[in-house]
Amino acid sequence: MRYTSHLLMNWTKKVYRLVPNWKRETEVKNLGYKVHGNPFSTSTRRVLAVLLEKGLSYESITVDLKSGEHKTEPFLSLNPFGQIPVFVDGNIKLHESRAITQYIAYVHSTRGTQLLYLQSHETMAILTVWMEIEAHQFDPFASKLTWEQAIKPIYGLETDQVVVKENEANLEKVLDIYEKRLGKYRFLVCNTFTLADLHHLPNIQYLLGTPTKRLFEDRPKVLKWVGEITGREAWKMACDHEKYWFGKQTK
Amino acid sequence: MRYTSHLLMNWTKKVYRLVPNWKRETEVKNLGYKVHGNPFSTSTRRVLAVLLEKGLSYESITVDLKSGEHKTEPFLSLNPFGQIPVFVDGNIKLHESRAITQYIAYVHSTRGTQLLYLQSHETMAILTVWMEIEAHQFDPFASKLTWEQAIKPIYGLETDQVVVKENEANLEKVLDIYEKRLGKYRFLVCNTFTLADLHHLPNIQYLLGTPTKRLFEDRPKVLKWVGEITGREAWKMACDHEKYWFGKQTK
Repeated sequence: MRYTSHLLMNWTKKVYRLVPNWKRETEVKNLGYKVHGNPFSTSTRRVLAVLLEKGLSYESITVDLKSGEHKTEPFLSLNPFGQIPVFVDGNIKLHESRAITQYIAYVHSTRGTQLLYLQSHETMAILTVWMEIEAHQFDPFASKLTWEQAIKPIYGLETDQVVVKENEANLEKVLDIYEKRLGKYRFLVCNTFTLADLHHLPNIQYLLGTPTKRLFEDRPKVLKWVGEITGREAWKMACDHEKYWFGKQTK
Repeated sequence: MRYTSHLLMNWTKKVYRLVPNWKRETEVKNLGYKVHGNPFSTSTRRVLAVLLEKGLSYESITVDLKSGEHKTEPFLSLNPFGQIPVFVDGNIKLHESRAITQYIAYVHSTRGTQLLYLQSHETMAILTVWMEIEAHQFDPFASKLTWEQAIKPIYGLETDQVVVKENEANLEKVLDIYEKRLGKYRFLVCNTFTLADLHHLPNIQYLLGTPTKRLFEDRPKVLKWVGEITGREAWKMACDHEKYWFGKQTK
C-alpha cells in the first residue's frame, strides 16, 4: 500500500465536509494507556501534558530512578536505552517523549486541543521546524540549566556556576530569536497552541524556579508566552503529581 | 478546518484503490528548489540525500562557513539561528535538516524511494521513534566524533583524544542496541530503507574515514547495514560534491 499525501490532504478536506455535525469529543476516554515514568522527569511530564490536553485516561507506573530501575530488566525490555518514559498502548511500546507526543496527537487529532497544524504540507513543515528548534536549539541549553539548578540540588550535588553562565549566554541568543517570532504570532508556530510550544513546557517550568527565570522576564513577548503556556489547565494538572501521577497508580 | 487522521488513513486507502494505474514517478523533476549550504556539512548532505533519493532537481548555493557568511545578513534572514542548510521552495524557507527531509518526503511520497512508513499510525510512530533515536541517542556522540576526528583536522585544530574516548564508549552502547535491532529487521525501522536510516548517513560516512570505523566493524549486523546504506546510489551522489553540489550552482 502506497500513500499519496497530496490526495490525502484533498480527500480529508472532502471527508470533513461530509461530516456536517462534526463534534469535538471532550469526555475523558480510557483506552488502557500506560505510562512508565517519573512525575519529576521533564520527559515524562511532556507525555502527561499531551494526554491531559487530549482528555485521555492513563495508568501511571513509577520507575525508581534512584535505585537505577530504568537501567535493569524488566525495564530494559521496554526501552533498551534505559530511559523514561515508556508509553504502552496495547502491544505498542514507545519511547522517546517527542515521538510519543506525536503519536498521541495524530491518533487523537479530533479530540481536545488540536496540537498539530494539519492544514497543508507547508503548515506541518513549520510545526516540524519548531519542534526541531525546541529539540536542537532550546533543549540542549535549557536541560543543562535545569539539571544544574533544579535537579542536582535534589541529589545533594553542587551547581556548577561556570556551566550555568555558559548555557545562559547561549539560551539568551535563542530567546532573542523567540522574542522576534512571538512578535508575529501568539505561539511559536502560529496563533494556536501546538506540540512545539508544549515540548518546551517541562524545562521552562523548572527554570521558572531558578535565577534563569530572569532570561524570560527580560523579554516581554517571551514572558507573555511563558505565562500563557504554563497557565494552561492541562499543564497545571501534569505538574500536580499527587493527583495526576500517584493518583493514577494502580499497583 | 479540522482534520481527522483516522478518517484520513481510511480514505487514503480508498483513494489509492480509485487510482488503478498508479505509477511511480521516476524522471528527475525540477520544481525550482534551492539549497543554501555547504557540501561538506553533515546537515546539508542529509537534505541532498533525500532530494537525490526522490529524483528531484535543485539549485545549490554555497555558504562560506570559513568567512562566517552564515552568521551575517542576508543569511540570517533565511535562518535566524545562523545554521546551514536552508531549503527554499517558492515562498517557503525551511531550516533544521530533519524538518526539511520530512517535508520533502511527505510532499513527494509517491516519487522515488518511499522513505516514510505510512501504513498506519503505529508504523509512523515506529519511524518517529527511530528518527528521535538518531537525533538524541546517536547524533550527540557521533557528531562529536566527526567533529574531533574529521572536521577539526581540516581547520588545523588538534583532535582531543579524551573526548574521542568518552564519546566512543557511549556510541558503543548505542550500537549494541542497533546490533540487536538489525537482527530483527534489515533496516532500523522495518525491512525497507526509511528516513531514520538516511538521517544517520552523514556522520557514518565521516566516521568510516576515522579509527571509529572499528565500532561498526566489531558488530556484524551494524556493519552490513552501514555497507548497505552508504552504498546507495543517491548517497554516493550526495557525496560527489563536484557533480552534485558545485555542478548544481548557477551563480
